[in-house]
Amino acid sequence: MKLLRYGAAGAEKVGALDAQGNIRDLSLLIPGDLTPDWLSPERLQALTAINLEKLPLVDKNVRLGVPVAGTRQFMAIGLNYRAHAAESGLDIPKEPVIFSKALTSLSGPNDDILLPDDSTATDWEIELGFVIGTKAQKVSEKDALKYIAGYCLANDVSERDWQIKRNGQWSKGKSFDTFGPIGPWLVTTDELTDPQKLEMELKVNGEVRQHSNTADMIFPVATIVSYLSQFMTLLPGDVVITGTPAGVGLGMKPQQFLKKGDVVTLRIDQLGTQTQKVV
Amino acid sequence: MKLLRYGAAGAEKVGALDAQGNIRDLSLLIPGDLTPDWLSPERLQALTAINLEKLPLVDKNVRLGVPVAGTRQFMAIGLNYRAHAAESGLDIPKEPVIFSKALTSLSGPNDDILLPDDSTATDWEIELGFVIGTKAQKVSEKDALKYIAGYCLANDVSERDWQIKRNGQWSKGKSFDTFGPIGPWLVTTDELTDPQKLEMELKVNGEVRQHSNTADMIFPVATIVSYLSQFMTLLPGDVVITGTPAGVGLGMKPQQFLKKGDVVTLRIDQLGTQTQKVV
Repeated sequence: MKLLRYGAAGAEKVGALDAQGNIRDLSLLIPGDLTPDWLSPERLQALTAINLEKLPLVDKNVRLGVPVAGTRQFMAIGLNYRAHAAESGLDIPKEPVIFSKALTSLSGPNDDILLPDDSTATDWEIELGFVIGTKAQKVSEKDALKYIAGYCLANDVSERDWQIKRNGQWSKGKSFDTFGPIGPWLVTTDELTDPQKLEMELKVNGEVRQHSNTADMIFPVATIVSYLSQFMTLLPGDVVITGTPAGVGLGMKPQQFLKKGDVVTLRIDQLGTQTQKVV
Repeated sequence: MKLLRYGAAGAEKVGALDAQGNIRDLSLLIPGDLTPDWLSPERLQALTAINLEKLPLVDKNVRLGVPVAGTRQFMAIGLNYRAHAAESGLDIPKEPVIFSKALTSLSGPNDDILLPDDSTATDWEIELGFVIGTKAQKVSEKDALKYIAGYCLANDVSERDWQIKRNGQWSKGKSFDTFGPIGPWLVTTDELTDPQKLEMELKVNGEVRQHSNTADMIFPVATIVSYLSQFMTLLPGDVVITGTPAGVGLGMKPQQFLKKGDVVTLRIDQLGTQTQKVV
């Protein structure tokens, strides 16, 4: 299933994409929000009993929100593609690099990216994201994928000066409002069983900047879930993004960053597209 | 007012400490939880209209939880006391170091500290904490304290090998379950107007390890609120802890870390005490 949330920011309703790519209104069956309790394997299984074609159509041009509500933790993995570590001038990590993004950075897949007033180094990062469905503590790699509700496309927008030059710890450059576009949909794990063979591409003003495949990850999704769950408890609804491939502005010669009016478009196989305008 | 939450973990009720130091049951007036909407200046002001002495007494020995519910972000400041930066072998920061702790690390002030199975370097850190009362975006230092609902005592428990040796970004060593004891109370800002003159002391098995005063902070609370709010939006209920003074196990010669059976006791002027057993 492709679950989504549509409508004005802060007042989203629950919907889903049908087989023809139309948005259907799920809000008569799920009048509340797509909260963490909806993401358990049992409830996601129950949702597949719904014949989407019998539900009202929603205007295709409606705004989409983050596809899940009630997220409590927004975690990210750094340097998870060899060529990106190299372009960043950093060593290939021996174990996953973990950092957090502020919850308040979460935004809809096509919402504008807000350029901070004093920013001169705001950068793009296409990433595969996933959402936890079942509370995870010290899970094994073998079982790890069972704890995932679904996958989504993400842009890990990053202010490089704040991240790197403003006294340590990356969260500082990763947490500004609108720096975490997620969506358009959450593709549940019954539809997407192998997260390690998805092509991904990011363009800025129509020019390809990042093009890779999740097969190139150093630490695959199962390793990430297992590893993270050794250090902290992951809760249903938590969003984890899995690192970006080469091609960010930081790695270009000369370096190139986002400026007002730029348009960023992202695409990952099966996960849909995002388009963000920089304002 | 000294607001608190009492009862079994996950089923806490709202209470407050009266002038005699007795716990009073506020749950007949606040039947839900002490959620972020209770922390606005207007509602905190309204709470002072309650005559606590007219409310039922609660057993002094009841378990206390984190004094606020519904926290969405748990942020921390690193290296905010000169002598601690020195004992950590790190430079005095030119601007605040920000990192995050997992929400799932939050625990009651006297709950046991869970030593991770493979941990050999779990350390203590007494800190002044505060809780946001009003959404804060790019606020000035002059106005910053108005965005705070109250202050609390915190222990920023840290696994040093995970924090320092396991491939970058401190969150990894700061996020294990029970690594964030907060409480016993939230002391609202009408009762505690100056957070920069509080004596603080931490003992391990009765021996003083940390003894300092919040006057020694490099970046005071007002600076921290203003600074953080430039990089991310702070929400009501968010917990921020402000850095630890010298005297952690990492800085001892030889280094000394927590082991099963150890008892950690913490005290900050006006903010009460914590006692944690390491298990």
